[in-house]
Amino acid sequence: MGREDDKNTVSRRQVVGTAAVGAAGLAGGLGLGRAALPEPAAAQAQPKTPARAGSLKTEVAPGELDEYYVFFSSGQTGEVRIIGMPSMRELMRVPVFNRDSATGWGLTNESLKILTEGLTQETRDRLKGRLNGVWQNGDCHHPHMSFTDGTYDGRYIFINDKANTRLARIRTDIMKCDKIVELPNQYTIHGMRPQKYPRTGYVFCNGEYEVPLPNDGKVLDDKSKYWSMFSAVDGDTMKVAWQVIVDGNLDNVDADYQGKYAFATCYNSEKGVTLAEMTASEQDWLTIFNIKRIEEAVKKGDFKQMNGVPVIDGRHGSPYTRYVPVSNSPHGINTAPDGIHAVANGKLAPTVTVFDLRKFDDLFDDKIKPRDVVVAEPELGLGPLHTAFDGKGNAYTTLFLDSQVCKWNIDLAKRAFKGEKVNPIIQKLDVHYQPGHNHSSMGETKEADGKWLISLNKFSKDRFLNVGPLKPENDQLIDISGDQMKLVHDGPSFAEPHDAVIVHRSKLDGKIISVWKRDDPFFADAVKQAKADGVSLESDAKVIRDGNKVRVYMFSAAPAYGLEKFEVKQGDEVTVYITNIDDVEDLTHGFCIVNYGINMEIGPQQTSSVTFVADKPGVYWYFCTWFCHAMHMEMRGRMLVSPQNV
Amino acid sequence: MGREDDKNTVSRRQVVGTAAVGAAGLAGGLGLGRAALPEPAAAQAQPKTPARAGSLKTEVAPGELDEYYVFFSSGQTGEVRIIGMPSMRELMRVPVFNRDSATGWGLTNESLKILTEGLTQETRDRLKGRLNGVWQNGDCHHPHMSFTDGTYDGRYIFINDKANTRLARIRTDIMKCDKIVELPNQYTIHGMRPQKYPRTGYVFCNGEYEVPLPNDGKVLDDKSKYWSMFSAVDGDTMKVAWQVIVDGNLDNVDADYQGKYAFATCYNSEKGVTLAEMTASEQDWLTIFNIKRIEEAVKKGDFKQMNGVPVIDGRHGSPYTRYVPVSNSPHGINTAPDGIHAVANGKLAPTVTVFDLRKFDDLFDDKIKPRDVVVAEPELGLGPLHTAFDGKGNAYTTLFLDSQVCKWNIDLAKRAFKGEKVNPIIQKLDVHYQPGHNHSSMGETKEADGKWLISLNKFSKDRFLNVGPLKPENDQLIDISGDQMKLVHDGPSFAEPHDAVIVHRSKLDGKIISVWKRDDPFFADAVKQAKADGVSLESDAKVIRDGNKVRVYMFSAAPAYGLEKFEVKQGDEVTVYITNIDDVEDLTHGFCIVNYGINMEIGPQQTSSVTFVADKPGVYWYFCTWFCHAMHMEMRGRMLVSPQNV
Repeated sequence: MGREDDKNTVSRRQVVGTAAVGAAGLAGGLGLGRAALPEPAAAQAQPKTPARAGSLKTEVAPGELDEYYVFFSSGQTGEVRIIGMPSMRELMRVPVFNRDSATGWGLTNESLKILTEGLTQETRDRLKGRLNGVWQNGDCHHPHMSFTDGTYDGRYIFINDKANTRLARIRTDIMKCDKIVELPNQYTIHGMRPQKYPRTGYVFCNGEYEVPLPNDGKVLDDKSKYWSMFSAVDGDTMKVAWQVIVDGNLDNVDADYQGKYAFATCYNSEKGVTLAEMTASEQDWLTIFNIKRIEEAVKKGDFKQMNGVPVIDGRHGSPYTRYVPVSNSPHGINTAPDGIHAVANGKLAPTVTVFDLRKFDDLFDDKIKPRDVVVAEPELGLGPLHTAFDGKGNAYTTLFLDSQVCKWNIDLAKRAFKGEKVNPIIQKLDVHYQPGHNHSSMGETKEADGKWLISLNKFSKDRFLNVGPLKPENDQLIDISGDQMKLVHDGPSFAEPHDAVIVHRSKLDGKIISVWKRDDPFFADAVKQAKADGVSLESDAKVIRDGNKVRVYMFSAAPAYGLEKFEVKQGDEVTVYITNIDDVEDLTHGFCIVNYGINMEIGPQQTSSVTFVADKPGVYWYFCTWFCHAMHMEMRGRMLVSPQNV
Repeated sequence: MGREDDKNTVSRRQVVGTAAVGAAGLAGGLGLGRAALPEPAAAQAQPKTPARAGSLKTEVAPGELDEYYVFFSSGQTGEVRIIGMPSMRELMRVPVFNRDSATGWGLTNESLKILTEGLTQETRDRLKGRLNGVWQNGDCHHPHMSFTDGTYDGRYIFINDKANTRLARIRTDIMKCDKIVELPNQYTIHGMRPQKYPRTGYVFCNGEYEVPLPNDGKVLDDKSKYWSMFSAVDGDTMKVAWQVIVDGNLDNVDADYQGKYAFATCYNSEKGVTLAEMTASEQDWLTIFNIKRIEEAVKKGDFKQMNGVPVIDGRHGSPYTRYVPVSNSPHGINTAPDGIHAVANGKLAPTVTVFDLRKFDDLFDDKIKPRDVVVAEPELGLGPLHTAFDGKGNAYTTLFLDSQVCKWNIDLAKRAFKGEKVNPIIQKLDVHYQPGHNHSSMGETKEADGKWLISLNKFSKDRFLNVGPLKPENDQLIDISGDQMKLVHDGPSFAEPHDAVIVHRSKLDGKIISVWKRDDPFFADAVKQAKADGVSLESDAKVIRDGNKVRVYMFSAAPAYGLEKFEVKQGDEVTVYITNIDDVEDLTHGFCIVNYGINMEIGPQQTSSVTFVADKPGVYWYFCTWFCHAMHMEMRGRMLVSPQNV
């Protein structure tokens, strides 16, 4: 591992240089290739004396527990993943926007309700009658935990869907998605972050792509009529609180620790629709949202109602926003745990831009000019995308093109910005390869602990056994507890965890249950229906016929279902309710019907239900899919479907 | 870790005893609870002198490669997973029976063809018009690599679907599923194993569940008319070669190293339909299939044609099968690398039964009685489910109820069976908890190397950070290179990898490609259609209109698509073909359309296509979902959908 640290004295770009960089082809004509970017001055200024590297214990021996939960987005896979750190083992997948064969997510009535009730009426109508009425894909980018008073409160994980413009929420007590809302008036969510103070509160969602408003086909190719939208969703109700129309577009977003501002990077101030147009200007900007002023505007009615949402005009000249110029196409935006600074990452510029959030009041009061809020702008290397923090005044920025993480000091950067001859760069560490997001332990809270950093690398190439044309990403674990960063683990992952948050286990200890509570709202509809049918879910096993609708109720206890068979007629609409009356931790049952495309999870003390049409006559065994008992193979029963004409 | 080894001197059942075991509730009345089973004599006979434990290097440092590929089934998740060993990191997910949001498996035309063309006509008709015409779930159990001459040949991985009665094949050169076949006349596949010699050849598939034949609803509740089916699929053509009707049912299956026999466990010789009925008899059996005789029967016409498949009668009295009695409800069946022995695992009996395959000829020639093929029957502990081998004469059997792996010696077991006073048990190692399958490195081939064992445990309970009511399984890695087994790693996994095969990397080195070949059959239909349209997939970007069918062709090269926009009319059936002309390893592109539920993978030099109806007017951005370039965010274009009435 020591070898990794030593490489940062050679030119990293000569080492990498094949994949994403070399393929610049179409972009070459724009003068944005590597050669066109200035060599960062700091690149030659590596620390000369070897400093102490971290020495955290990385092994998690059999039976030991990890210290941190990492909540990973899964990109286009559509799920959220829970990883244990430092072992970097995947502990659980939480299906959200995807169809999951194992749990029945996207098939059970309980999941279909969550997947559909927050959609706009227009989308519900579009999807009616096909694909179970739900989208079958999602594109998750940014998982974040809910905050109270500037740190994680262990209530929820939020996750965006860039593909179909949705925001989802995961209840951490059961680690299941419980709410999904589609944002109207907006076509894609990219950047997403929760309000940090006083609590979440708002979840801010960036509309990255510019479209006509309304987007009904009346305007098509006239880009002057395209707009991007900024949305605030109420994290408690999961309803859209308000939206703001902006100039340019919106990439990533973060919020302050004072509850006053949210701010988003814009890489397309040009409102271009081609690559050349989008990257034409030397500068784009940071868009700052004044939350109090917006709330007052909503109160006093300074908005236009669109699809039930108050939409505020935040374009140039508005009292609700400010636009601070930064170099070409900034990408990440990250608030430091000191509550004072935020860093926008240059992407096509080799610099990051540091803002002093204390100056935003004066900016909104027009006492200073937009660029007066900038207090540092260090040149770090090629392709800075995201910055993490250690709570000790240091920042860690991913350099996509250089395939490095750059450790630098905020105070030194500020002094350099003022003209002092100091080098803010402390160390550059090679990562493998092309890092996007990175994240430090508790690093997006005021409790950043400076122990671990994960670099989420987009390419892995030769780092793992070959698995075909599709390669895993590489989420690398770095010990940042010492003066020098130390790479300790390569973590392959399936397409494509853009981002992650690292939460100390103490934030969740005692909050996560192992056995469902019988009054959980997750399956309240089933409880209600059973009551109406006079059925006790926990002890009855019976079939209720209501015309051609049949409700089959049964409990399950290893190794048997309450019903060893049930009979329906071809053409019946059948709903099967299963209540797992085992109350033993980890004793999950499944319910799968052979050649009927039906499978679902039923956790201990959970009720799950599924509805389908008995379209094919014959004998169809149902069986338990979670190995539950020595006689698990015998845990099966028969659905007897009599033919229509009998 | 040493602590783990020491525990096997205490009574393991007192330590575990809460989950699957304690919940026997409904089974209690059957007298099959733990207390009812005899205490294995060997349990007190632990080795008294400490022996050498293995000392294999388990750390795979950043940048180092694993030595083995492990192909894991994923149970009800429906995919196949590729794990690196000994790091136990998930390197890739291969979607097979599931809908995958990331790659577009179940959505792209290429995957839909694979998912539908091998279905029976009846199933295709059933699924027409809903859920893209495919099942959205599967239940994978047994992944196995194709064999040549008794060892892995690196061509294919086969995987069963218990849920919807399918067998799938994965091409290892691209690590994508290329063929799926639904078995007619059979309702579920559980056990599945490929022919080992001379090559695969056949893939044997067990119909676990008994149903009427035909299963059309005319017979429903008359269990005397239920039958189980054994199928042989041709691994080259992926067509069903022949089927055999058997008495009882079929659980797991294995084949010999001589190409003469396949043999399957039966746990329901009673043909019961309830738990009590299924477990009533003291004995069930092993069903042996004589491949040559069956092939001759097919040649000479001794079969009934059912749904296009020759179906042979293999019930008692037939020349094609033999039934060898074994104790109650055997589960796993495993052929030893010596080519001589096979082991059936007792499940409800504390014994495993060892067969001498050399005696099967005499059994079929009626020179000996069925039980004469049994050469050992050691009592190992409670709930023996599966056995793995080290190639040195030792066997490793999972004990589900005891939550242990039992290492024992085949030769000692044979001597004990003959009456000699020797104890075949070498060591018992605690695992956590309730192990099902286990697998040793190269252990199902004649090249078993005796280095590693994986125990696939069904319960993990307290072994990982709490992630809610649904817990991961625990795939534990055990070093078996020494005299004593040594537990080295706990591996959490999502529901539910029943089985795995451990393949030395040398079997795949040089066989897996990183960049697609342009003549790959995977996307041959797209190539054909482009040719008919006079389009060059690699260099053209154009739109072909054919009535209300629109074919949109474009290439992609980071960071841009060949078309920055295309226009269609509301109601058009649109097919988008993307050809990724980047030929750089690991440079995958994606294609996602906002609010249209469309996303797919396009690997380097691959062509992918998707068909949908442009049902909603407006501006819909499409974008790249695999981060490919510093200007990846700008890799987007517009689908302009003009309203129907314009």
